[in-house]
Amino acid sequence: MTRIACCQIEPVVADLDANTELIASNISDAVAAGADIVVLPELATSGYMLADTDEARSVALTVESPQFAKWSAAVGDSIAIFGFCEIGDGGLLYNSAAVVDSGGVSAVYRKTHLWDREKLIFTRGCDLPPVLQTRHGAVAVMLCYDLEFGELTRRAAVDGADLIVAPVNWPLFPRPEGERPGEVITAMSTARTNRVAVAACDRAGVERGQAWTAGTAIVDADGWVAATAGPGTGTAVADVDLALSRDKRLTEYVHLLDDRRLDLY
Amino acid sequence: MTRIACCQIEPVVADLDANTELIASNISDAVAAGADIVVLPELATSGYMLADTDEARSVALTVESPQFAKWSAAVGDSIAIFGFCEIGDGGLLYNSAAVVDSGGVSAVYRKTHLWDREKLIFTRGCDLPPVLQTRHGAVAVMLCYDLEFGELTRRAAVDGADLIVAPVNWPLFPRPEGERPGEVITAMSTARTNRVAVAACDRAGVERGQAWTAGTAIVDADGWVAATAGPGTGTAVADVDLALSRDKRLTEYVHLLDDRRLDLY
Repeated sequence: MTRIACCQIEPVVADLDANTELIASNISDAVAAGADIVVLPELATSGYMLADTDEARSVALTVESPQFAKWSAAVGDSIAIFGFCEIGDGGLLYNSAAVVDSGGVSAVYRKTHLWDREKLIFTRGCDLPPVLQTRHGAVAVMLCYDLEFGELTRRAAVDGADLIVAPVNWPLFPRPEGERPGEVITAMSTARTNRVAVAACDRAGVERGQAWTAGTAIVDADGWVAATAGPGTGTAVADVDLALSRDKRLTEYVHLLDDRRLDLY
Repeated sequence: MTRIACCQIEPVVADLDANTELIASNISDAVAAGADIVVLPELATSGYMLADTDEARSVALTVESPQFAKWSAAVGDSIAIFGFCEIGDGGLLYNSAAVVDSGGVSAVYRKTHLWDREKLIFTRGCDLPPVLQTRHGAVAVMLCYDLEFGELTRRAAVDGADLIVAPVNWPLFPRPEGERPGEVITAMSTARTNRVAVAACDRAGVERGQAWTAGTAIVDADGWVAATAGPGTGTAVADVDLALSRDKRLTEYVHLLDDRRLDLY
């Protein structure tokens, strides 16, 4: 079993120092509680409601920034995955996810599907989400709106992902009483139709007028929610058997990937 | 608004005459209740748990079979869509869906993704689901397990479907207390990620030891369930605004189809 912790924090917009401490302490606490994989929200380093490129640039990091050494020191033998505001070569800004272990940053993914006004600040990534071989299994990393594109999540499953990890910032949308957030419903469907676990770590709070869903969910390979973080800040923890993701056969004659009609689409 | 009725009936396995009457009376009743589009389950004419090809052949129909004239007479100015056991040229059997209006059979779709032991009886279809232009809007027709393939449902949305109609027979799987059937969760996700309405008509009862989910659901383009048929036999009815499906723009900068990264997948 792999212990996954999703820390549904409330970053402070444009306050890199505060968020650096918040991320480090949440990683430390989750690792102390036995987490193998620690997930934090999208743009955890910067907050989301950045006014413009100038403000984004003022809190942007590169993978060489010293903050990553601090987070790497906090993670021990575990892995942390979270979103950060990245400045790349040429000064372009990316909405990125970092995978951090005791050796530093082991992978970076730049969001390929930018949501709404992100398009005014960030440049979209041009590489598919990585599928990382870890000692817990194969982990695909994507970000928020990416999860809404079945083309991408299917590709991760075909590429062997046992777990899809997604830092997210889900803006709060109205929903009928008693219903899960729509994004969680899609995460559940992604899990069951691909037989892959999904860990989506949302954020809490209201930022510059934008309320967040606080919809963090860890979903098992059967598509059922194993843990949420509830309303407000908090951490969702679940022990998930990632080996289940490796068997796509539901019955003698049903195989979720082999049953695709690649001759038709 | 378009009134959709899904008749969650309990066909009698291998009893074509009984099922012919059951289908006709359900179509008549739904039309009398104002339904524009009437949906019945997969393999409504034959039942599902057919022993072998011989038994399937004994209740198989072609689109010229006289039963279709009876159903066409029942449908008035509306449209009925349901599954039937089809025998084609050369004696091959198909798990098919028929679209019936007052003029007769206007379209047939042969299931492209066969589930489990269907593969022992039926030949899989080699054409994508049709998207029919009706006076209510564009209607895509698929069957049961097809709905689990995001490749197919996305294609229907790209091809302009306002509504995906799917006769289904969902075998009952265990699920956590309080959860919707997994197949309904996928229908909801399909609706919200494509902004398309979905009407899945399941069946009721237990047939030769196989219990059915009775999970019929009509889902609106926002991904919320507008009607179910409840447990047992019954009819789900919902008035759905299919025009909503024609606008894929959620915000000024978000468009569910244009935001795909066709350069990456």
